[in-house]
Amino acid sequence: MSVKNAFYAQSGGVTAVINASACGVIETARRHSDKIGKLYAGHNGILGALREELIDTCEETNDTIASLRHTPGGAFGSCRYKLARIEDNEAEYQRIVDVFKAHNIGYFFYNGGGDSMDTAYKISLYSQKVGYPITCIGIPKTVDNDLPATDTCPGFGSVAKYVATSVKETSRDIESMHESSTKVFIMEVMGRHAGWITAAAALAMEEDNDPPHMLLFPEIDFCRETFLAKVERIVNEHGYCVIVASEGTHYADGTFLSASRSTDAFGHVQLGGTAPILARMVKDSLGYKYHWAVVDYLQRSARHLASAVDVEQAYAVGRAAVEFALEGKNGVMASIVREDSENDEYVWSIGEAPLEMVANVEMKIPEHFIAPDGLHITKECRDYLRPLIQGEDFPPFKNGVPVFANLKKVLEEKKLEAFEV
Amino acid sequence: MSVKNAFYAQSGGVTAVINASACGVIETARRHSDKIGKLYAGHNGILGALREELIDTCEETNDTIASLRHTPGGAFGSCRYKLARIEDNEAEYQRIVDVFKAHNIGYFFYNGGGDSMDTAYKISLYSQKVGYPITCIGIPKTVDNDLPATDTCPGFGSVAKYVATSVKETSRDIESMHESSTKVFIMEVMGRHAGWITAAAALAMEEDNDPPHMLLFPEIDFCRETFLAKVERIVNEHGYCVIVASEGTHYADGTFLSASRSTDAFGHVQLGGTAPILARMVKDSLGYKYHWAVVDYLQRSARHLASAVDVEQAYAVGRAAVEFALEGKNGVMASIVREDSENDEYVWSIGEAPLEMVANVEMKIPEHFIAPDGLHITKECRDYLRPLIQGEDFPPFKNGVPVFANLKKVLEEKKLEAFEV
Repeated sequence: MSVKNAFYAQSGGVTAVINASACGVIETARRHSDKIGKLYAGHNGILGALREELIDTCEETNDTIASLRHTPGGAFGSCRYKLARIEDNEAEYQRIVDVFKAHNIGYFFYNGGGDSMDTAYKISLYSQKVGYPITCIGIPKTVDNDLPATDTCPGFGSVAKYVATSVKETSRDIESMHESSTKVFIMEVMGRHAGWITAAAALAMEEDNDPPHMLLFPEIDFCRETFLAKVERIVNEHGYCVIVASEGTHYADGTFLSASRSTDAFGHVQLGGTAPILARMVKDSLGYKYHWAVVDYLQRSARHLASAVDVEQAYAVGRAAVEFALEGKNGVMASIVREDSENDEYVWSIGEAPLEMVANVEMKIPEHFIAPDGLHITKECRDYLRPLIQGEDFPPFKNGVPVFANLKKVLEEKKLEAFEV
Repeated sequence: MSVKNAFYAQSGGVTAVINASACGVIETARRHSDKIGKLYAGHNGILGALREELIDTCEETNDTIASLRHTPGGAFGSCRYKLARIEDNEAEYQRIVDVFKAHNIGYFFYNGGGDSMDTAYKISLYSQKVGYPITCIGIPKTVDNDLPATDTCPGFGSVAKYVATSVKETSRDIESMHESSTKVFIMEVMGRHAGWITAAAALAMEEDNDPPHMLLFPEIDFCRETFLAKVERIVNEHGYCVIVASEGTHYADGTFLSASRSTDAFGHVQLGGTAPILARMVKDSLGYKYHWAVVDYLQRSARHLASAVDVEQAYAVGRAAVEFALEGKNGVMASIVREDSENDEYVWSIGEAPLEMVANVEMKIPEHFIAPDGLHITKECRDYLRPLIQGEDFPPFKNGVPVFANLKKVLEEKKLEAFEV
């Protein structure tokens, strides 16, 4: 029986460390060349499987693969493509099996969030049903930290470190000028449904009254009056107010603040963020001078400030996925398990969770992690978050900017007819 | 004759390295305690002189002062307060002289931009006129890099490094997803009148066609049609388009894009940035999926990614200011001088420029630094910029975030009556 080839794909929004997972997968596969043949990566994720666009990672040097560990973004391309239910579009599942068959692929490593774990699970079931069983292993990834069954999600620790650092630094700026100038600074961060990134901003604090003074979570209905009253109180007490707001901040009726529609003089619809909307409220009702930032892609691509813990975990789940497959496991996701420890030291290990447990479940911030007024976090939340941003893992720099991997991305020759996605 | 005391003040928008200049001033003054007595820092800058709020830096330990070197923001507070012309408000000048007299202050070190150099110059003239001559030395500072008579301005190199790094990283993100998702990313950076920060984004490029694909400068009138045509061409050629836009981007009639006024359903005026306005144009005319970021304070407070060259220069001009004073110089600004060098190595030294030469002159990007189409930079610009972002100077980290100085900021006892500013 010939050694099976493997297929790895990146899925959904990319992070500062998803390539570290890729590195873990590829380097581990290379160490088991007696058991795994070629390792293909999907060009633009699962679309690569559907279109038979398979990047042959064997064409990349060991040095290039090693440099994935410090390269942000998705080196092989990614997409947000969720396969429909098998009964609604069996042709897509059949196509994936056909492509895998044609290229002797027996292992599928899918690196993404909840939707991806769902896809991996479905493919695992389907491939068995049609008599070409594929070993499907999930590798967790998401800046939103919302996957169940894992202590944390690779990608999150680094964005948490970035946001906490950025809040600490920008707070020094507004603190310098507030007496005669800017009194309110609003920083908008990612997190449409789960506010973990917003929560992590609180790690900027050394003392209780340090900024950020207010956090706006998607888990808490936004109330304009409460918000403004607190801003005013904080400015009166501390001289200035630093707010970190999730892009998912919304009113009680579910409307996102960022969806507040407005038209300009030409009748064009203004594309809002959350921060400018909050800034307008502050200006209109309180008259304070403000500044606002929308961090957007910067926070999730900031490999220059990645958390060493996050990088290590991202790599480890990639490595573990291959090891699971070689141990004969199937239909599981490699997870992070937080161990009990005597002192405050963060001890973690690799675990596994059935894919069907992880699929389609969103872990929002639990109630006991959010302060009673809904506008900050508790000590328990802080204790949970703190270890995830520890340690620095700076990439190499050249000419003043980080050095990233440049892959050849050689495509394997196609064997099948085209397939319309 | 008694040893004179000194007064140091921070002015205008703060940077990642203005405290490194403060460190240079204070450490150098401490090394010459036989010639300089107490070193006071103005609480909130020049307002501290007017209000007689003098922070006694002698109360800070050597370690605390040393840690200023890696601390962003203005440790002593800052303000945007430009003294009027002497003939329009002599009382303010008299007050400063009175305060300096009362505290035996004979040296004034003013750390700021063009307006501050103007103030220092005026105080130098006035103090001589009224028979209490104060040695006034300017210390350059501005993220905008727009001071004349100096190769570069402390604060700029670090924001340049940050912006170039952020563009390089975010470009990897959009590159991963563009095939099926976001096609345009717009990053708005500081620079209301001079586009140096925007220009520095180009240092992200390794190859000619790398992102950023387009730069929007305040020096170039914005044309909507030209902009959209180029976005479309770039997306067709490269699959996606990364734009870095200055907050000072404006139409030919001078109107800032960010001032495009719009009202929402309640009649509230929307507070726009430049990036969302550009995003709306892209969406309305080209229909591409977009993302945008407004970096705001993050770029100028990012001490975690400061340029080593910038930190060294910031410190050096602080040190030089004190040395100039002790050498008997007056009415000058410590400057950076780029030396000729055999190879490509950046060699610089400290120079001096008369304050009246520096005051009120804004150095915009010269024409030969901007590409013919006005939407990128030339090789000459790149050669000028590249050395300024070299080297890393990471601060110490603790618990995953940078460690910054915490000063006691003990105020000297007042001797005079209050003065209304």
